[in-house]
Amino acid sequence: MNLQSPILSRLKKDAGTIFHSGLEAVEPETAIYRHCKRKGDNLFIGNKNYNLSKYENIYLIGAGKAASPMTFAMETLLNDKLTGGVAVVKYGHFSKSNTIKIIEAGHPVPDENGLKGAESIMQVANKAGENDLIICLISGGGSALLPFPAPGITLEDKQTTIKILLACGAAIHEINSIRKHISGIKGGLLAQAAYPASFISLILSDVVGDDLDIIASGPSVPDSSTYKDCMDIVARYGISKKLPYAVFRHLQNGLKGLIPETPKPQDPIFNKTGNLIIGSNMEAIRSAKIKAQNLGYNTLILSSMIQGETREAARMHAAIAKEIRKTGHPLSPPACILTGGETTVTISGNGKGGRNQEFALAAAIDIDGHENIVIFSAGTDGTDGPTDAAGAVADTTTIKRASAKKTNAQKCLSNNDAYHFFQSINDLVITGPTHTNVMDLRIILVG
Amino acid sequence: MNLQSPILSRLKKDAGTIFHSGLEAVEPETAIYRHCKRKGDNLFIGNKNYNLSKYENIYLIGAGKAASPMTFAMETLLNDKLTGGVAVVKYGHFSKSNTIKIIEAGHPVPDENGLKGAESIMQVANKAGENDLIICLISGGGSALLPFPAPGITLEDKQTTIKILLACGAAIHEINSIRKHISGIKGGLLAQAAYPASFISLILSDVVGDDLDIIASGPSVPDSSTYKDCMDIVARYGISKKLPYAVFRHLQNGLKGLIPETPKPQDPIFNKTGNLIIGSNMEAIRSAKIKAQNLGYNTLILSSMIQGETREAARMHAAIAKEIRKTGHPLSPPACILTGGETTVTISGNGKGGRNQEFALAAAIDIDGHENIVIFSAGTDGTDGPTDAAGAVADTTTIKRASAKKTNAQKCLSNNDAYHFFQSINDLVITGPTHTNVMDLRIILVG
Repeated sequence: MNLQSPILSRLKKDAGTIFHSGLEAVEPETAIYRHCKRKGDNLFIGNKNYNLSKYENIYLIGAGKAASPMTFAMETLLNDKLTGGVAVVKYGHFSKSNTIKIIEAGHPVPDENGLKGAESIMQVANKAGENDLIICLISGGGSALLPFPAPGITLEDKQTTIKILLACGAAIHEINSIRKHISGIKGGLLAQAAYPASFISLILSDVVGDDLDIIASGPSVPDSSTYKDCMDIVARYGISKKLPYAVFRHLQNGLKGLIPETPKPQDPIFNKTGNLIIGSNMEAIRSAKIKAQNLGYNTLILSSMIQGETREAARMHAAIAKEIRKTGHPLSPPACILTGGETTVTISGNGKGGRNQEFALAAAIDIDGHENIVIFSAGTDGTDGPTDAAGAVADTTTIKRASAKKTNAQKCLSNNDAYHFFQSINDLVITGPTHTNVMDLRIILVG
Repeated sequence: MNLQSPILSRLKKDAGTIFHSGLEAVEPETAIYRHCKRKGDNLFIGNKNYNLSKYENIYLIGAGKAASPMTFAMETLLNDKLTGGVAVVKYGHFSKSNTIKIIEAGHPVPDENGLKGAESIMQVANKAGENDLIICLISGGGSALLPFPAPGITLEDKQTTIKILLACGAAIHEINSIRKHISGIKGGLLAQAAYPASFISLILSDVVGDDLDIIASGPSVPDSSTYKDCMDIVARYGISKKLPYAVFRHLQNGLKGLIPETPKPQDPIFNKTGNLIIGSNMEAIRSAKIKAQNLGYNTLILSSMIQGETREAARMHAAIAKEIRKTGHPLSPPACILTGGETTVTISGNGKGGRNQEFALAAAIDIDGHENIVIFSAGTDGTDGPTDAAGAVADTTTIKRASAKKTNAQKCLSNNDAYHFFQSINDLVITGPTHTNVMDLRIILVG
């Protein structure tokens, strides 16, 4: 059954084109080359010029899902000037390097290899001297790939602590304060280890809002929270008895001044430390916007910070699409609304899917029977949940076309089975791995 | 503790002003007078002219939460020309009328008085002749206030049927098809009873999307669904044995042609029937927009059709507000984003609140620690859940101010206790009953 009008077919094709334009802007090598230019001995990073001949050693360190292509691009730029270094990548992401040690490690669950990788990176940081430069490449997954608990605390202690904090209703900034104070690398400690070497982090952000102290828990970013804040949080939620004893003792020792504080914003370390975001969700959205405008759409960027329960965010996207059709608010058709960020799925069924596919399914239900609306959602890493799809695309005929294949939308949604739903009507978005990750893109098109 | 900057105080004051401007536009009497003008014997309703001297009798009927003030305004306009009529209002909304019978009845749970009221209204419709005019005033709650099951079906049968349809996952348009086919007044049957009299419905919409066939289940609107559709739905969800027998038999008799169908769009009835929306959520939003612009805000209407789980919709509003602060998308500050519609709350706690208060609380958590953001949410009826508040207003200091009063936002949210949360910091929005209802207004202001 082909219910799709030429307008709908056009909108769906355009959604794919707009998505790919967003992807291109945040491809890791592209991101490095866009923000870093080499001219002779000068390496321009952002608006800063690093004279490479000035340094005795130049080290490259990195961790994250995009560490392989980022490292490759930076190695190419540094070429003969590179002394050596270490990059920690996900299993299966190994790529040979002549000058850099590449370590594969566990993600999303940290493992022994990750501990070894973090140690190697700390060794590089510690040995670098005043006349050395460290370039650090951070991307999504960097936190899990670089587990390095403070002395006396195990990986398991750390994980238990986070679970307790989540369960007692602590706010995310409270959890982060404690996370940084029980780590040996996060909360600015990597930059502290590197000091007095010069240090610059290039960051591909996979975090909503791009907060530097959140991405990989801010290894090169000042931490304004203190051990006293941590103990206040412990007291506020009455969890002193629940925490692993090693964690509680560590925080208490910190409060007593027996352990040094995390580096604070005014610390001289940060005169020699830089952080630059070279790729982000908003950068992908901006590129997508230009493509949409070129395709003739009235275009609006709504927010790169969408979070929360997927199917509910989808409903709000559908509500905006329907308003465009009905009254021309917030834009007149042909209209394109772009959003980004990363939602979550509370799983209650046993189907197959991912947040982007579930987003498209929930949206499809709400736009059913309306006209000329397409809602596209896909992950920029090309992987949506445990599936081979990046996401899916919904339109105003999706529900009817699925019905004709005896596929019920409500049942699939209840069972978190968006993959089989969209597979049945051939509306999965499949890109293969993109080797980047700046969260998700969503595209509403109204003709 | 006063953490509020002059900017925040100004934003909060403006939010209230903008909300009240939205309210004024949909006040029931204002809505009637704006859309209906009397000049001598001519009554102009929308773009149509009714010559009152042409009719032998002019009847006024109505039902809904705003029936009292709507009736009063229309009585004033018709004055000497009015023959009589009936209005069904909520208990406590009685107001004396010299020419119209006012009946108080149960809402939201229909009762015997509602049955009597519906009968009286059907009697007026049935007795009206070809040279008579019926003016019908519909507002939110009209469906519950006018229970009139088809012959042989009880109120309880109807309610059981709706519950079964909701539980089996039927879509809302499927539920509505069956709802209309087991009613004696909905799905165009009131207009059919009135025929051949002239009939005009003036409608204050409390329904997302303002679909005429949904508001009060469309008593004067053609129904394109059929008994065959209803039996297909029953088969699709395998509920033939679950439905009350009287309902199943009624639908089966309809399928066999033993009971007449609901009137269809091409039916000549509708040549003498008109429907005009005189107040809606979008009308309130448009008025709010003008006020916001006059106050100097860059203003965007996002959607009047927001539905879904309240706290999740709130998160998306917060995400948009934060993006405005960070990148100036979708608007540069000072910015005002307006949305409408009606969300739902899945209750898991035993606190006190309503969807608008819970919206403000969830938004407050997400904007905590940011700067110069106010998020306001209130019901246009002045009543939010079982509270004396219409809603609440959140800002970027809300969480801190509540903390200082030992009130924890996450705990209150988990316990659906937004009322006590905002009461503690004096940020409830209290208007008293407004005697109108076009769902909710939400106002994001970013300075």
